[in-house]
Amino acid sequence: MKQIPIPSRRRLVTLSQILQQLEENGARVTSSEISALTGWSDATIRRDISLLCVHSGRSNGYEVAALREAIAAALDIRAGNGGKRCCIVGLGPLGSSLLSGTAFSGSAFSLAAAFDTSMNRIELLDSDIPLYLTTELKTVIPAKGITLAVLCVPDQIAQEMADRLVSFGIRGIVNYTNTILSVPDGVTVENANVVTALTRIVGASGSSL
Amino acid sequence: MKQIPIPSRRRLVTLSQILQQLEENGARVTSSEISALTGWSDATIRRDISLLCVHSGRSNGYEVAALREAIAAALDIRAGNGGKRCCIVGLGPLGSSLLSGTAFSGSAFSLAAAFDTSMNRIELLDSDIPLYLTTELKTVIPAKGITLAVLCVPDQIAQEMADRLVSFGIRGIVNYTNTILSVPDGVTVENANVVTALTRIVGASGSSL
Repeated sequence: MKQIPIPSRRRLVTLSQILQQLEENGARVTSSEISALTGWSDATIRRDISLLCVHSGRSNGYEVAALREAIAAALDIRAGNGGKRCCIVGLGPLGSSLLSGTAFSGSAFSLAAAFDTSMNRIELLDSDIPLYLTTELKTVIPAKGITLAVLCVPDQIAQEMADRLVSFGIRGIVNYTNTILSVPDGVTVENANVVTALTRIVGASGSSL
Repeated sequence: MKQIPIPSRRRLVTLSQILQQLEENGARVTSSEISALTGWSDATIRRDISLLCVHSGRSNGYEVAALREAIAAALDIRAGNGGKRCCIVGLGPLGSSLLSGTAFSGSAFSLAAAFDTSMNRIELLDSDIPLYLTTELKTVIPAKGITLAVLCVPDQIAQEMADRLVSFGIRGIVNYTNTILSVPDGVTVENANVVTALTRIVGASGSSL
Protein backbone atom coordinates (compact mmCIF):
# COMPACT_ATOMS: atom_id res chain seq x y z
CA MET A 1 0.00 0.00 0.00
CA LYS A 2 1.17 3.54 -0.76
CA GLN A 3 2.31 5.79 2.07
CA ILE A 4 -0.51 8.19 2.93
CA PRO A 5 0.64 11.76 3.76
CA ILE A 6 -0.62 13.34 7.00
CA PRO A 7 -2.92 15.96 5.39
CA SER A 8 -4.58 13.20 3.35
CA ARG A 9 -4.92 11.08 6.48
CA ARG A 10 -6.70 13.91 8.26
CA ARG A 11 -9.07 14.47 5.35
CA LEU A 12 -9.77 10.73 5.10
CA VAL A 13 -10.61 10.63 8.81
CA THR A 14 -13.18 13.37 8.25
CA LEU A 15 -14.43 11.71 5.06
CA SER A 16 -14.96 8.47 6.95
CA GLN A 17 -17.19 10.28 9.44
CA ILE A 18 -19.17 11.88 6.63
CA LEU A 19 -19.65 8.49 4.97
CA GLN A 20 -20.98 7.09 8.22
CA GLN A 21 -23.74 9.67 8.11
CA LEU A 22 -24.40 9.06 4.41
CA GLU A 23 -24.77 5.31 4.83
CA GLU A 24 -28.29 5.82 6.06
CA ASN A 25 -29.22 7.79 3.00
CA GLY A 26 -27.72 6.31 -0.14
CA ALA A 27 -25.49 3.62 -1.51
CA ARG A 28 -23.16 5.74 -3.67
CA VAL A 29 -21.45 9.10 -3.42
CA THR A 30 -19.60 11.17 -6.04
CA SER A 31 -16.52 13.31 -5.49
CA SER A 32 -18.63 16.40 -6.31
CA GLU A 33 -21.06 15.49 -3.55
CA ILE A 34 -18.12 15.08 -1.15
CA SER A 35 -16.77 18.40 -2.37
CA ALA A 36 -20.07 20.12 -1.60
CA LEU A 37 -20.04 18.73 1.95
CA THR A 38 -16.39 19.44 2.75
CA GLY A 39 -15.20 22.30 0.58
CA TRP A 40 -12.22 20.26 -0.68
CA SER A 41 -11.56 20.36 -4.40
CA ASP A 42 -12.61 17.50 -6.62
CA ALA A 43 -8.96 16.85 -7.49
CA THR A 44 -7.95 16.67 -3.83
CA ILE A 45 -10.72 14.20 -3.05
CA ARG A 46 -9.87 11.97 -6.03
CA ARG A 47 -6.18 12.03 -5.11
CA ASP A 48 -6.86 11.14 -1.46
CA ILE A 49 -9.11 8.26 -2.48
CA SER A 50 -6.56 7.07 -5.05
CA LEU A 51 -4.25 6.35 -2.10
CA LEU A 52 -6.67 3.67 -0.92
CA CYS A 53 -7.22 0.19 -2.29
CA VAL A 54 -10.66 0.92 -3.70
CA HIS A 55 -12.18 0.87 -7.17
CA SER A 56 -13.18 4.31 -8.28
CA GLY A 57 -16.22 4.81 -10.43
CA ARG A 58 -15.55 8.08 -12.15
CA SER A 59 -18.99 8.32 -13.69
CA ASN A 60 -21.22 6.93 -10.98
CA GLY A 61 -19.29 7.65 -7.80
CA TYR A 62 -18.02 5.46 -5.00
CA GLU A 63 -19.90 2.84 -3.04
CA VAL A 64 -20.28 4.42 0.39
CA ALA A 65 -19.84 1.30 2.53
CA ALA A 66 -16.84 0.03 0.50
CA LEU A 67 -15.12 3.42 0.59
CA ARG A 68 -15.60 3.73 4.33
CA GLU A 69 -14.22 0.22 4.84
CA ALA A 70 -11.19 1.02 2.64
CA ILE A 71 -10.43 4.15 4.69
CA ALA A 72 -10.81 2.26 7.96
CA ALA A 73 -8.47 -0.47 6.70
CA ALA A 74 -5.86 1.97 5.38
CA LEU A 75 -5.80 4.09 8.55
CA ASP A 76 -6.38 1.18 10.95
CA ILE A 77 -9.47 2.79 12.46
CA ARG A 78 -11.79 -0.16 11.97
CA ALA A 79 -14.47 -0.49 14.63
CA GLY A 80 -15.06 -3.82 16.30
CA ASN A 81 -13.07 -6.18 18.53
CA GLY A 82 -14.23 -3.86 21.27
CA GLY A 83 -12.33 -1.00 19.66
CA LYS A 84 -9.02 0.57 20.63
CA ARG A 85 -8.91 0.96 24.37
CA CYS A 86 -8.78 4.40 25.93
CA CYS A 87 -9.08 5.90 29.36
CA ILE A 88 -10.12 9.27 30.76
CA VAL A 89 -7.72 10.88 33.23
CA GLY A 90 -9.28 13.58 35.41
CA LEU A 91 -12.97 13.45 36.30
CA GLY A 92 -13.80 17.10 36.79
CA PRO A 93 -16.83 18.52 34.93
CA LEU A 94 -15.30 17.98 31.46
CA GLY A 95 -13.84 14.52 32.10
CA SER A 96 -16.98 13.23 33.76
CA SER A 97 -19.13 14.62 30.92
CA LEU A 98 -17.41 12.07 28.65
CA LEU A 99 -18.28 9.15 30.93
CA SER A 100 -21.95 9.07 30.20
CA GLY A 101 -23.93 9.32 27.04
CA THR A 102 -22.82 8.69 23.52
CA ALA A 103 -19.31 10.17 23.41
CA PHE A 104 -17.69 6.89 22.30
CA SER A 105 -20.66 4.93 20.93
CA GLY A 106 -20.38 3.59 17.41
CA SER A 107 -16.74 4.62 17.21
CA ALA A 108 -13.55 2.61 16.77
CA PHE A 109 -12.76 3.26 20.44
CA SER A 110 -13.92 1.84 23.72
CA LEU A 111 -13.66 3.52 27.07
CA ALA A 112 -12.01 0.91 29.31
CA ALA A 113 -11.33 2.94 32.46
CA ALA A 114 -11.34 6.41 34.00
CA PHE A 115 -9.09 7.83 36.70
CA ASP A 116 -9.15 10.61 39.27
CA THR A 117 -7.03 11.59 42.27
CA SER A 118 -10.07 11.92 44.53
CA MET A 119 -11.76 8.86 46.01
CA ASN A 120 -14.62 11.14 47.05
CA ARG A 121 -15.29 12.15 43.47
CA ILE A 122 -15.06 8.56 42.26
CA GLU A 123 -17.60 7.43 44.84
CA LEU A 124 -20.01 10.20 43.87
CA LEU A 125 -19.92 9.43 40.14
CA ASP A 126 -22.44 6.94 38.86
CA SER A 127 -20.93 5.23 35.82
CA ASP A 128 -20.85 1.94 33.95
CA ILE A 129 -17.15 2.55 33.25
CA PRO A 130 -14.72 1.19 35.87
CA LEU A 131 -13.30 4.11 37.89
CA TYR A 132 -9.91 4.06 39.62
CA LEU A 133 -7.60 6.24 41.63
CA THR A 134 -4.65 7.61 39.63
CA THR A 135 -2.36 5.60 41.91
CA GLU A 136 -3.66 2.56 39.99
CA LEU A 137 -2.67 3.89 36.52
CA LYS A 138 0.52 1.83 36.63
CA THR A 139 -1.30 -1.48 36.96
CA VAL A 140 -4.63 -0.82 35.18
CA ILE A 141 -3.20 0.62 31.91
CA PRO A 142 -1.05 -2.43 31.05
CA ALA A 143 -3.56 -4.91 32.46
CA LYS A 144 -6.36 -3.62 30.23
CA GLY A 145 -4.15 -2.98 27.20
CA ILE A 146 -5.02 0.74 27.15
CA THR A 147 -2.92 2.76 24.65
CA LEU A 148 -4.88 6.03 24.42
CA ALA A 149 -5.69 8.60 27.11
CA VAL A 150 -8.03 11.59 27.24
CA LEU A 151 -6.38 14.13 29.54
CA CYS A 152 -8.79 16.34 31.50
CA VAL A 153 -6.73 17.17 34.61
CA PRO A 154 -6.01 20.72 35.88
CA ASP A 155 -3.49 22.57 33.65
CA GLN A 156 -0.79 22.75 36.29
CA ILE A 157 -0.45 18.97 36.63
CA ALA A 158 -0.99 18.13 32.95
CA GLN A 159 2.68 17.65 31.98
CA GLU A 160 3.47 15.56 35.05
CA MET A 161 0.43 13.35 34.39
CA ALA A 162 1.34 13.03 30.69
CA ASP A 163 4.84 11.86 31.69
CA ARG A 164 3.34 9.21 33.95
CA LEU A 165 0.87 8.05 31.30
CA VAL A 166 3.63 7.67 28.71
CA SER A 167 5.79 5.74 31.17
CA PHE A 168 2.91 3.29 31.74
CA GLY A 169 2.44 2.63 28.00
CA ILE A 170 0.12 5.35 26.64
CA ARG A 171 0.98 6.16 23.00
CA GLY A 172 -1.63 8.80 22.16
CA ILE A 173 -3.11 11.63 24.26
CA VAL A 174 -6.17 13.76 23.56
CA ASN A 175 -5.26 16.91 25.46
CA TYR A 176 -8.23 18.91 26.79
CA THR A 177 -6.02 20.96 29.11
CA ASN A 178 -4.54 24.36 28.22
CA THR A 179 -0.99 23.06 28.72
CA ILE A 180 1.12 22.29 25.66
CA LEU A 181 2.54 18.85 26.36
CA SER A 182 6.07 17.73 25.64
CA VAL A 183 6.14 14.00 24.82
CA PRO A 184 8.81 11.63 23.48
CA ASP A 185 9.01 10.39 19.88
CA GLY A 186 6.40 7.77 19.14
CA VAL A 187 3.74 9.43 21.29
CA THR A 188 1.10 11.58 19.58
CA VAL A 189 -0.79 14.47 21.17
CA GLU A 190 -3.99 15.96 19.73
CA ASN A 191 -4.95 19.27 21.36
CA ALA A 192 -8.72 19.54 21.62
CA ASN A 193 -9.33 22.20 24.25
CA VAL A 194 -11.71 25.00 23.35
CA VAL A 195 -9.11 27.78 23.07
CA THR A 196 -6.90 25.73 20.74
CA ALA A 197 -9.93 24.94 18.59
CA LEU A 198 -11.02 28.60 18.48
CA THR A 199 -7.48 29.72 17.71
CA ARG A 200 -7.26 27.21 14.84
CA ILE A 201 -10.45 28.65 13.39
CA VAL A 202 -9.20 32.22 13.52
CA GLY A 203 -5.63 31.32 12.56
CA ALA A 204 -6.71 29.08 9.70
CA SER A 205 -9.45 31.27 8.30
CA GLY A 206 -7.20 34.31 8.43
CA SER A 207 -10.28 36.52 8.36
CA SER A 208 -11.09 39.14 10.93
CA LEU A 209 -13.77 37.24 12.79
CA MET B 1 2.96 40.61 4.46
CA LYS B 2 3.41 37.21 2.83
CA GLN B 3 0.48 34.83 2.58
CA ILE B 4 0.81 32.21 5.31
CA PRO B 5 -0.17 28.67 4.24
CA ILE B 6 -2.63 26.74 6.41
CA PRO B 7 -0.14 24.13 7.76
CA SER B 8 2.19 26.95 8.82
CA ARG B 9 -0.74 28.77 10.43
CA ARG B 10 -1.59 25.69 12.47
CA ARG B 11 2.02 25.26 13.60
CA LEU B 12 2.28 28.95 14.48
CA VAL B 13 -0.88 28.69 16.60
CA THR B 14 0.74 25.87 18.57
CA LEU B 15 4.06 27.72 18.73
CA SER B 16 2.29 30.75 20.16
CA GLN B 17 0.88 28.61 22.98
CA ILE B 18 4.31 27.13 23.69
CA LEU B 19 5.83 30.62 23.83
CA GLN B 20 3.18 31.67 26.34
CA GLN B 21 4.44 28.93 28.65
CA LEU B 22 8.08 29.81 28.01
CA GLU B 23 7.60 33.49 28.83
CA GLU B 24 7.72 32.64 32.50
CA ASN B 25 11.04 30.89 32.10
CA GLY B 26 13.32 32.72 29.72
CA ALA B 27 13.64 35.64 27.38
CA ARG B 28 14.94 33.88 24.27
CA VAL B 29 14.32 30.62 22.47
CA THR B 30 16.21 28.91 19.64
CA SER B 31 14.72 26.91 16.80
CA SER B 32 16.44 23.79 18.19
CA GLU B 33 14.68 24.31 21.51
CA ILE B 34 11.37 24.70 19.66
CA SER B 35 12.21 21.57 17.69
CA ALA B 36 12.80 19.60 20.88
CA LEU B 37 9.40 20.69 22.23
CA THR B 38 7.38 20.13 19.07
CA GLY B 39 9.14 17.51 16.95
CA TRP B 40 9.11 19.86 13.91
CA SER B 41 12.34 20.10 11.95
CA ASP B 42 14.62 23.08 12.39
CA ALA B 43 14.07 24.02 8.74
CA THR B 44 10.28 23.94 9.12
CA ILE B 45 10.42 26.16 12.18
CA ARG B 46 12.74 28.69 10.51
CA ARG B 47 10.56 28.76 7.41
CA ASP B 48 7.37 29.29 9.42
CA ILE B 49 8.94 32.12 11.39
CA SER B 50 10.35 33.67 8.21
CA LEU B 51 6.72 34.28 7.16
CA LEU B 52 6.33 36.71 10.07
CA CYS B 53 7.60 40.24 10.40
CA VAL B 54 10.21 39.44 13.01
CA HIS B 55 13.98 39.67 13.20
CA SER B 56 15.59 36.27 13.44
CA GLY B 57 18.72 35.83 15.46
CA ARG B 58 20.28 32.73 13.98
CA SER B 59 22.97 32.42 16.60
CA ASN B 60 21.16 33.46 19.75
CA GLY B 61 17.56 32.58 19.02
CA TYR B 62 14.34 34.59 19.04
CA GLU B 63 13.04 36.90 21.70
CA VAL B 64 10.06 35.02 23.15
CA ALA B 65 7.72 37.97 23.75
CA ALA B 66 8.46 39.57 20.36
CA LEU B 67 7.97 36.29 18.50
CA ARG B 68 4.69 35.66 20.24
CA GLU B 69 3.49 39.17 19.44
CA ALA B 70 4.49 38.74 15.77
CA ILE B 71 2.50 35.50 15.52
CA ALA B 72 -0.52 37.09 17.19
CA ALA B 73 -0.35 40.04 14.80
CA ALA B 74 0.08 37.88 11.68
CA LEU B 75 -2.76 35.50 12.57
CA ASP B 76 -4.97 38.13 14.20
CA ILE B 77 -5.15 36.23 17.49
CA ARG B 78 -4.03 39.07 19.72
CA ALA B 79 -5.54 39.02 23.20
CA GLY B 80 -7.06 42.19 24.62
CA ASN B 81 -9.97 44.44 23.72
CA GLY B 82 -12.00 41.87 25.60
CA GLY B 83 -11.01 39.26 23.01
CA LYS B 84 -13.01 37.82 20.15
CA ARG B 85 -16.49 37.10 21.33
CA CYS B 86 -17.79 33.56 21.48
CA CYS B 87 -20.80 31.76 22.84
CA ILE B 88 -21.53 28.23 24.01
CA VAL B 89 -24.61 26.58 22.54
CA GLY B 90 -25.94 23.62 24.53
CA LEU B 91 -25.44 23.47 28.28
CA GLY B 92 -25.42 19.73 28.95
CA PRO B 93 -22.52 18.32 30.99
CA LEU B 94 -19.87 19.22 28.38
CA GLY B 95 -21.17 22.69 27.53
CA SER B 96 -21.67 23.67 31.15
CA SER B 97 -18.18 22.40 32.04
CA LEU B 98 -16.81 25.22 29.83
CA LEU B 99 -18.80 27.89 31.70
CA SER B 100 -16.80 27.81 34.87
CA GLY B 101 -13.12 27.70 35.57
CA THR B 102 -10.29 28.65 33.34
CA ALA B 103 -11.36 27.40 29.90
CA PHE B 104 -11.09 30.86 28.29
CA SER B 105 -8.85 32.75 30.71
CA GLY B 106 -5.73 34.38 29.32
CA SER B 107 -6.81 33.60 25.77
CA ALA B 108 -7.67 35.82 22.82
CA PHE B 109 -11.33 34.93 23.32
CA SER B 110 -14.05 36.01 25.68
CA LEU B 111 -17.18 34.08 26.48
CA ALA B 112 -19.99 36.56 25.97
CA ALA B 113 -23.06 34.33 26.27
CA ALA B 114 -24.30 30.76 26.55
CA PHE B 115 -27.54 29.24 25.29
CA ASP B 116 -29.75 26.26 26.01
CA THR B 117 -33.23 25.14 25.02
CA SER B 118 -34.25 24.45 28.61
CA MET B 119 -35.21 27.27 30.97
CA ASN B 120 -35.00 24.75 33.81
CA ARG B 121 -31.36 24.01 33.09
CA ILE B 122 -30.53 27.70 32.75
CA GLU B 123 -32.10 28.44 36.11
CA LEU B 124 -30.15 25.64 37.79
CA LEU B 125 -26.76 26.73 36.45
CA ASP B 126 -24.81 29.18 38.56
CA SER B 127 -22.62 31.22 36.21
CA ASP B 128 -21.08 34.66 35.76
CA ILE B 129 -21.73 34.32 32.01
CA PRO B 130 -25.13 35.59 30.79
CA LEU B 131 -27.35 32.61 29.94
CA TYR B 132 -30.18 32.70 27.39
CA LEU B 133 -32.77 30.48 25.78
CA THR B 134 -31.89 29.46 22.21
CA THR B 135 -34.95 31.39 21.05
CA GLU B 136 -32.86 34.49 21.82
CA LEU B 137 -29.92 33.52 19.56
CA LYS B 138 -31.28 35.73 16.82
CA THR B 139 -31.10 38.91 18.89
CA VAL B 140 -28.21 38.21 21.30
CA ILE B 141 -25.60 37.14 18.69
CA PRO B 142 -25.75 40.35 16.63
CA ALA B 143 -26.31 42.58 19.69
CA LYS B 144 -23.14 41.31 21.39
CA GLY B 145 -21.07 41.06 18.21
CA ILE B 146 -20.50 37.31 18.69
CA THR B 147 -18.82 35.63 15.70
CA LEU B 148 -17.71 32.29 17.17
CA ALA B 149 -19.77 29.47 18.66
CA VAL B 150 -18.89 26.35 20.63
CA LEU B 151 -21.47 23.73 19.70
CA CYS B 152 -22.32 21.22 22.47
CA VAL B 153 -25.90 20.27 21.58
CA PRO B 154 -27.16 16.67 21.06
CA ASP B 155 -25.88 15.15 17.79
CA GLN B 156 -29.30 14.90 16.19
CA ILE B 157 -29.96 18.66 16.30
CA ALA B 158 -26.39 19.77 15.57
CA GLN B 159 -26.81 20.52 11.86
CA GLU B 160 -30.08 22.38 12.38
CA MET B 161 -28.49 24.47 15.15
CA ALA B 162 -25.40 25.17 13.03
CA ASP B 163 -27.65 26.43 10.22
CA ARG B 164 -29.38 28.80 12.63
CA LEU B 165 -26.07 30.04 14.09
CA VAL B 166 -24.68 30.78 10.64
CA SER B 167 -27.85 32.62 9.64
CA PHE B 168 -27.48 34.85 12.73
CA GLY B 169 -23.87 35.79 11.89
CA ILE B 170 -21.61 33.07 13.36
CA ARG B 171 -18.47 32.61 11.19
CA GLY B 172 -16.62 29.90 13.11
CA ILE B 173 -17.88 26.83 15.00
CA VAL B 174 -16.00 24.59 17.43
CA ASN B 175 -17.92 21.36 17.00
CA TYR B 176 -17.98 19.10 20.06
CA THR B 177 -20.83 17.00 18.65
CA ASN B 178 -20.34 13.75 16.68
CA THR B 179 -22.16 15.21 13.67
CA ILE B 180 -20.11 16.34 10.67
CA LEU B 181 -21.47 19.80 9.89
CA SER B 182 -22.14 21.17 6.46
CA VAL B 183 -21.60 24.95 6.39
CA PRO B 184 -21.43 27.57 3.63
CA ASP B 185 -18.22 29.11 2.26
CA GLY B 186 -16.73 31.63 4.65
CA VAL B 187 -17.69 29.65 7.76
CA THR B 188 -15.02 27.50 9.43
CA VAL B 189 -15.66 24.39 11.52
CA GLU B 190 -13.10 22.85 13.86
CA ASN B 191 -14.08 19.37 15.06
CA ALA B 192 -12.97 18.85 18.64
CA ASN B 193 -15.05 15.96 19.93
CA VAL B 194 -13.22 13.12 21.60
CA VAL B 195 -13.73 10.52 18.86
CA THR B 196 -12.46 12.88 16.14
CA ALA B 197 -9.41 13.67 18.27
CA LEU B 198 -8.72 9.98 18.95
CA THR B 199 -9.22 9.11 15.28
CA ARG B 200 -6.77 11.85 14.27
CA ILE B 201 -4.17 10.37 16.61
CA VAL B 202 -4.56 6.88 15.19
CA GLY B 203 -4.99 8.06 11.61
CA ALA B 204 -2.06 10.43 11.78
CA SER B 205 0.34 8.20 13.65
CA GLY B 206 -0.45 5.30 11.36
CA SER B 207 0.83 2.92 13.98
CA SER B 208 -1.14 0.06 15.45
CA LEU B 209 -1.93 1.64 18.79
